[in-house]
Amino acid sequence: MLEVYHAEPVANTMKVLICLKEKQLDFVSHYVNLLLFEQHEPEFVAINPNGQVPVLVHDGNVITESTVINEYLEDVFPEIPLRPSDPLWCARMRTWSKFVDDYFCPALSMIGWHRMVRKVAQSLDKDQLDEVLAKIPLKRQRDKWATVAGESFSEQELAESRRRLGVSIDKMELMLGESEWLAGPEFSLADANSYSMVAGVRRLHPDLITVNEAPRCNDWLDRMEARPGLQAAMAMPNKVPETLRTFG
Amino acid sequence: MLEVYHAEPVANTMKVLICLKEKQLDFVSHYVNLLLFEQHEPEFVAINPNGQVPVLVHDGNVITESTVINEYLEDVFPEIPLRPSDPLWCARMRTWSKFVDDYFCPALSMIGWHRMVRKVAQSLDKDQLDEVLAKIPLKRQRDKWATVAGESFSEQELAESRRRLGVSIDKMELMLGESEWLAGPEFSLADANSYSMVAGVRRLHPDLITVNEAPRCNDWLDRMEARPGLQAAMAMPNKVPETLRTFG
Repeated sequence: MLEVYHAEPVANTMKVLICLKEKQLDFVSHYVNLLLFEQHEPEFVAINPNGQVPVLVHDGNVITESTVINEYLEDVFPEIPLRPSDPLWCARMRTWSKFVDDYFCPALSMIGWHRMVRKVAQSLDKDQLDEVLAKIPLKRQRDKWATVAGESFSEQELAESRRRLGVSIDKMELMLGESEWLAGPEFSLADANSYSMVAGVRRLHPDLITVNEAPRCNDWLDRMEARPGLQAAMAMPNKVPETLRTFG
Repeated sequence: MLEVYHAEPVANTMKVLICLKEKQLDFVSHYVNLLLFEQHEPEFVAINPNGQVPVLVHDGNVITESTVINEYLEDVFPEIPLRPSDPLWCARMRTWSKFVDDYFCPALSMIGWHRMVRKVAQSLDKDQLDEVLAKIPLKRQRDKWATVAGESFSEQELAESRRRLGVSIDKMELMLGESEWLAGPEFSLADANSYSMVAGVRRLHPDLITVNEAPRCNDWLDRMEARPGLQAAMAMPNKVPETLRTFG
């Protein structure tokens, strides 16, 4: 049995939901409400000590980290493959997915936290904030919450993240000039792992992804959104109010 | 034909050299002297626009990123497998390798740059430094050089990195209590991808890896260093003076 602990269909949760739906795999869904800080509750931390979604549980075995979960799903359920069969395209899939994890996603995340998550943090009084912080297992995450509850990120840090979003979109434009999908002629995990970040740029920084400046990224978004698998992932529950949405 | 552009047998270069030697693959070695900034020269940047080693060139095709290179070598040369056949251990191999890339290696790198690379940066006069900086393709790398040429990292940043090394060693102790190697009963890429970082802790912060505090890590280091593959990787050229060595 496959069980998935996940939040709304964005960011790292979305990577795994797209993979599951494209592979037409059935799973038991456990919605973890991040606005209620359910990811830091003891029941969830017992499953993932890092207190982060998504988590896959396969026949009782826990697998964490969205990029790793998607490779695991490929290893165990190869019937509808999303990993390129050509090893060179497969390497491209992994290099790009790593870039998304290390560079693209953190840049978008900082801007999303500054614009939206900050509203949540600043709505808490000091006791509530202390209680939230005390439960966060990872110091990095604790520091991020403390930052947006306080003076938030500096203008310089935000400008650097915006620059990185531009670099990411430019890279995608180049790649989509070389092949129809991000890692070759077929849809792959490289696409699944990128969708929510690109849609997030469209949401938070539409100036970086105009049809004139980034025609291939726009065409790719259209093709992604026409896919039944992506539509099924998008239809998963989302309890976040429109005004607090960050990733696309 | 396999060609490898690499530096001395440490850090990310070492990950790939261990993998190649353990898999008994022949390759043409191109030593890139980082102390002479050869990684930023036009000839090398034409191969890897990021100006970073290691790079694998297989029949003319360029593959970058050490973790991705090692998976590629598995895909193309499966004869001596270093990827666990059990998908759960394989997921563990990937989760751990990602942790090494995202957390363990950057923490050690900061301390190494502060203690050793800083000596190189500060030995340059202003014109030389400007010339070096102007050639570095990645802004992140440029910023790191500028940091160690100036006031270097803060005490707070260095303390945080030291803390992260402790977290990394503690995690390894736990994992080595569950299985003989880092991702199961067999030596795997999880081990290959970690060796130089653990040996670097032994070099730069021996207090974090005493036999009393980290007996399993010490035993693992002994078993690693007894392997002919690792010994062959270690025997690759190293032009860095002892006083400037950072990773183990």
